[in-house]
Amino acid sequence: MTPTVLGLDGGGSKTRCLVVDAAGTILGRGEAAASNYQTVGGEAAYHAILDAIAAATAHQSLTIRAITLGLAGVGRPRDEQIVHDWLQLLQQDSRLPLIWELHPRGVRICPDCEIALVGGLGRDTGLATIAGTGAIAYGRNAAGQVARASGWGYLLGDEGSAYDIGRQGLRAVVRAADGRSPQTQLSDAICQNLGLDGVEDLVRRVYNPDWLPRDTAQLAPLVDQVARLGDAVATGILDEAAAELAIASRSVYQQLFRANHAVELVTLGGTWQSQGQLKQRFQQQLRESCPQIQVVSPRHDAVYGAVWLAARSIGWQSETFLPSFATMTEGI
Amino acid sequence: MTPTVLGLDGGGSKTRCLVVDAAGTILGRGEAAASNYQTVGGEAAYHAILDAIAAATAHQSLTIRAITLGLAGVGRPRDEQIVHDWLQLLQQDSRLPLIWELHPRGVRICPDCEIALVGGLGRDTGLATIAGTGAIAYGRNAAGQVARASGWGYLLGDEGSAYDIGRQGLRAVVRAADGRSPQTQLSDAICQNLGLDGVEDLVRRVYNPDWLPRDTAQLAPLVDQVARLGDAVATGILDEAAAELAIASRSVYQQLFRANHAVELVTLGGTWQSQGQLKQRFQQQLRESCPQIQVVSPRHDAVYGAVWLAARSIGWQSETFLPSFATMTEGI
Repeated sequence: MTPTVLGLDGGGSKTRCLVVDAAGTILGRGEAAASNYQTVGGEAAYHAILDAIAAATAHQSLTIRAITLGLAGVGRPRDEQIVHDWLQLLQQDSRLPLIWELHPRGVRICPDCEIALVGGLGRDTGLATIAGTGAIAYGRNAAGQVARASGWGYLLGDEGSAYDIGRQGLRAVVRAADGRSPQTQLSDAICQNLGLDGVEDLVRRVYNPDWLPRDTAQLAPLVDQVARLGDAVATGILDEAAAELAIASRSVYQQLFRANHAVELVTLGGTWQSQGQLKQRFQQQLRESCPQIQVVSPRHDAVYGAVWLAARSIGWQSETFLPSFATMTEGI
Repeated sequence: MTPTVLGLDGGGSKTRCLVVDAAGTILGRGEAAASNYQTVGGEAAYHAILDAIAAATAHQSLTIRAITLGLAGVGRPRDEQIVHDWLQLLQQDSRLPLIWELHPRGVRICPDCEIALVGGLGRDTGLATIAGTGAIAYGRNAAGQVARASGWGYLLGDEGSAYDIGRQGLRAVVRAADGRSPQTQLSDAICQNLGLDGVEDLVRRVYNPDWLPRDTAQLAPLVDQVARLGDAVATGILDEAAAELAIASRSVYQQLFRANHAVELVTLGGTWQSQGQLKQRFQQQLRESCPQIQVVSPRHDAVYGAVWLAARSIGWQSETFLPSFATMTEGI
């Protein structure tokens, strides 16, 4: 029975699992449905986790020595307790023909931003600023303390997220129509993108029950594109979003690190991509106010962060393991 | 058969009807359910209007010479066409034993903010800045031109509305918890108001499907209250809301009136009330930037505005009619 560690990334759209031996060789990969139990419910989340592990371990004689579960929607002690209970169930579940010989320090349940940070940086200290549909700044210091800012969802916060950028774009369009703000190329761009005859038609579209926060978020790349053409209103929206992401990142830095302590920050999530205007502005903001924070691009996917944490928890961070870990970035 | 005019105020929560004779005497009052057809649907809206008219005219031999329907959710030509069709149906409806002898100019279908302006000012020119759950600035000049700004609903606009103020209050609380913004007395005030143990519990409350935009709006008076205690964050939110309402009002003014043309602006809606901090700040903003706009308190309810418009459309604006109209403010 080969001794292995298991890393799992349970997100709001899918769940992925990786199983690795002591030499750092990937023995299996599995993928299943979403496992954010706050949105899909406990039963569906449990089954997604079970399915992902089953797919990654199928037809193998494996002994699980350590497991790290990085899960969206898990942030508070009572969330972790629920997942601990699931882990008990998993060990008794006949659909997983595994030998569970978990090391006393071999179980870790954490929010998905923690494994994203570890995967993104290739180590477990530093900052991760995640901007997807939502936004959160997360950090961990050498003493193991963690802190976060933003990440309160589309109604309470998430400034700088794709949702926020899309919403500001929509607001700029109606403000221009009212004569409350300058004209902007966003008006034509957004109407065209949504197939509308004019701004008035926005109301029927946006208040339709089919319109979800992610539809607002999907307008963010358009704002980035229009900013790239030199439109002042769109540029202003991205400047504001970049400033908000910088404020959240700085707040986490100040909670965890001494002034002037050099630290890496990894930018994660789809909102950073598009045409790059947001990231450029964010880096500029941080360079000016916090030069000790170095912005880097992601080194590995979050699921590798989960494996790395699991491996390290049982002392598998040998030099021979690390290089082979680096080769695991070939996608799952 | 007494000749009468009929005014109807069809809102998002109820529909009210008033029937008045040529001497300005109120012959009947009726109330029914909501008639915003965008939210309750066409059939329910039609029946609410029918019910309100039936209640106002019951057991009387009346001839209807003019009717003004001021309706929430009506703003575009195709909305008006729908209501014109309803009016045809009403005239054939056997549940209304009325004689319909409508004057050629005796039918008016308009958005509810128009009758609110007329009732609020007691005339049909000027500005009305409405701040309830939503917010809109509306105006009409002597040439009969109308303009509006804001009023795009909670997602696209409505800056300065109770929803907007409540949302900014919630955001200030989570920002303070993150260390992204100054501490504020709003944190305790909002948690206490919602019966929460702490800010972390906001997430579960606010993203529960039961939480509606009006629940966010209901926090606005609390922000006003905390501002009154001198809290800088709450004061900043109200300053921003007041500035936004002033921008919308100015935009409407500039669309309709020559520079320096003196005009009255009536403030309507529940958000202006609370502790008065918002209105104070709004008046200050306008005094500085637009001294030719005089802010006044509402003189009559919107349903009287509807009656006034109906009466005037058939030449009932005699001096004997107007004073008796003034006595109609005793509530419906």
